[in-house]
Amino acid sequence: MIMEGIYMIFKKGNCLIGQSGGPTVAINASLCGVIEEAIQDPNIDSIYGMVNGIQGFLEKRVLNLSDLFGKEEQRNFLKYTPAMYLGSCRYRLPSFEEDPNVYKEIFSTFQEMNIRYFFYIGGNDSMDTVWKLSQYAKKISYSIQIIGIPKTIDNDLPHTDHTPGFGSAAKYIATSVLEISHDSYIYDIPSVTIIEVMGRNTGWLSAATALAKTPYFNGPDLIYLPEVPFVMYEFLKDLRELQKVKNNIIVAVSEGIKNPEGQYIASQPTGTHIDGFGHAQLSGVGKVLEHIVKSALSCKVRSIELSVLQRSAMHIASKTDLDEAQQIGQEAVKAAQKGLTGHMMTWIRESNNPYSLKTSTIPVEKVANQEKKVPRNWINDLGNHVTSDMIDYLKPLILGEVNITYSEGLPKYCDISHLYTKRV
Amino acid sequence: MIMEGIYMIFKKGNCLIGQSGGPTVAINASLCGVIEEAIQDPNIDSIYGMVNGIQGFLEKRVLNLSDLFGKEEQRNFLKYTPAMYLGSCRYRLPSFEEDPNVYKEIFSTFQEMNIRYFFYIGGNDSMDTVWKLSQYAKKISYSIQIIGIPKTIDNDLPHTDHTPGFGSAAKYIATSVLEISHDSYIYDIPSVTIIEVMGRNTGWLSAATALAKTPYFNGPDLIYLPEVPFVMYEFLKDLRELQKVKNNIIVAVSEGIKNPEGQYIASQPTGTHIDGFGHAQLSGVGKVLEHIVKSALSCKVRSIELSVLQRSAMHIASKTDLDEAQQIGQEAVKAAQKGLTGHMMTWIRESNNPYSLKTSTIPVEKVANQEKKVPRNWINDLGNHVTSDMIDYLKPLILGEVNITYSEGLPKYCDISHLYTKRV
Repeated sequence: MIMEGIYMIFKKGNCLIGQSGGPTVAINASLCGVIEEAIQDPNIDSIYGMVNGIQGFLEKRVLNLSDLFGKEEQRNFLKYTPAMYLGSCRYRLPSFEEDPNVYKEIFSTFQEMNIRYFFYIGGNDSMDTVWKLSQYAKKISYSIQIIGIPKTIDNDLPHTDHTPGFGSAAKYIATSVLEISHDSYIYDIPSVTIIEVMGRNTGWLSAATALAKTPYFNGPDLIYLPEVPFVMYEFLKDLRELQKVKNNIIVAVSEGIKNPEGQYIASQPTGTHIDGFGHAQLSGVGKVLEHIVKSALSCKVRSIELSVLQRSAMHIASKTDLDEAQQIGQEAVKAAQKGLTGHMMTWIRESNNPYSLKTSTIPVEKVANQEKKVPRNWINDLGNHVTSDMIDYLKPLILGEVNITYSEGLPKYCDISHLYTKRV
Repeated sequence: MIMEGIYMIFKKGNCLIGQSGGPTVAINASLCGVIEEAIQDPNIDSIYGMVNGIQGFLEKRVLNLSDLFGKEEQRNFLKYTPAMYLGSCRYRLPSFEEDPNVYKEIFSTFQEMNIRYFFYIGGNDSMDTVWKLSQYAKKISYSIQIIGIPKTIDNDLPHTDHTPGFGSAAKYIATSVLEISHDSYIYDIPSVTIIEVMGRNTGWLSAATALAKTPYFNGPDLIYLPEVPFVMYEFLKDLRELQKVKNNIIVAVSEGIKNPEGQYIASQPTGTHIDGFGHAQLSGVGKVLEHIVKSALSCKVRSIELSVLQRSAMHIASKTDLDEAQQIGQEAVKAAQKGLTGHMMTWIRESNNPYSLKTSTIPVEKVANQEKKVPRNWINDLGNHVTSDMIDYLKPLILGEVNITYSEGLPKYCDISHLYTKRV
């Protein structure tokens, strides 16, 4: 009891939050969750946000989030704002051996600002930062709780059932595939529609296209993930077989599929050419396949790249995802209050139906720079679709719709002008 | 009085509806409006729909819409289903001189089915069909009311303030541009984001990107429409000037912009190459500009093609658009009841603020095969943005959100399996 009391006094100080890596629509919900919980914490005085991650922090660019989001109404706007309120960076923290000065600089500012809690919301690169900083804190005996909060639409972080942001991307993808299908079926002529989904190394997002299943539509006819080598001949054979029984074929494909030799389909000779300035131009895998199918099957073919809207379309976010993202932010503060540091928050799924999740944590070095692939047994034997286990896993993640506010027909999001005031 | 009575008896019969051209999210709302009004009409017995337009009708593919959409609940599902419930065709009706048999065949089926009302929902090509059929009906003295109902996301039909389907496309585009901007501003490095919008010959859709304006964001920095020749040097100069004052530049561009020599930018030498099968591959204008800007400005550049979701994303449709589309369908039946034929329904705007619209009609030959360009004075002098007159015109069209039903996290739309049962 006395020990715990002493510990609590020691921990009193300010809280810092950062966001890093690529955006998702759920990352601000996690930020909102951290602020919400930190505001109520008697050991936390002020809550600061680093602008543009560690890189911006090194330039002392910091916002006072206690002031900006002290009211619940303000936090609600934040929760339903896409991308990253605090901005991001692609800065990779050097190791202490490489550059001890960066560490000294960061911790001297920590000291100066009396930062005793640091929450970094990001993907596997960001978890590397969490790991390095928590190691250094230990080394210099600086008392700070550093917690990683996962986020990535790619769902490729290990040791967690899924990642915040993935469910909303999956919902956007499934909805778009359904709507594109309605668009595809209107003509009574043979056609192939190729939908290119994000996912350079893992196929979680392209698997989510299978959710576009209704009583009248089976979802994509073929789904290709980077986990299985892509054989062009087999693909064309699959299409020919399908054409015998149906007119309009829908194909979903990860941007990162590779041939059996390990080369990206997107960078095959058919997909590149030299532009007017002498640079090689890389076509996306959708475009490459479009041209090959057009040549091989002589039917109407089109390719659609879902692009960055997969990670920024807040207007069709998953309520489950946003609520979970907010809640994992709150849990991160609770974990820090318990004295945890150098850990990442995780989820463990207890059951699919009813969907039940519990929060846990994992030492961050087990996550940093790791990647979770789609298990082979969640992809069918032919490697051109997913199994019912995958669908059961995905289904709960896209449930529920968000009620965003609209003004003059346009979604009303948080003011992010602090991110683009050009500094001289 | 007596005359009118006789006329009414003469007109009693069945009603036929068809859809043609490219899809929009509002075209089923017009179908819904026609059914709604026709059901109440004592002169109309059964309501039929031609599957896959005139082409499917020639193969006798017809649905009984009175049975399928007799209940309001069923019609509501139809109203909120994207693309075309009845399917489409790209069939161009030959002239009577070219092929009299087609006309004989169509009208013999009209006679057989006792079709006395025909509503064709489509763009300028479809209005050509309306015109030819109404001319032929007059020629053979077949009593029928043929009315064209406009639709096109392109908004390029003359003699109407705007077209059903355009408002929803504009809302999707404006929302996407805003969300992409949130995505673009997260990195503290110079970047150019190029958003490619549909519109081969007219710039209405790319103008709609200007609606992505909020108190903290001015919308795209540059907007290029096909109505003004695109000068690459001026474009690069504009970018350089902007880079002096801001980091992240957003550019919106119509797919159909052309250089001063009248060639599509999308088909410039930098944009094409020969694929593995010896075919020329055409890059979209976004990709072409991406590579040129990357080479010329050496900064982060990406291009995003909004693709077919512009015309099929029901989940973010404009309530104003869908309600208007439904209402113009109802008005079409009323116009037919008054004895009108060979006309297209139109809208006349009475004022922008408050937004007020009245329905009218125009002889269809004044619309068929015509195209309405953006007026030059709604584009700024430099030809790289739109004026406030354009914004005032666009604003009311995206107002209001639709409450679509979701099931298991996915929008619930009408069963369209009748469109893709392969016939042997």
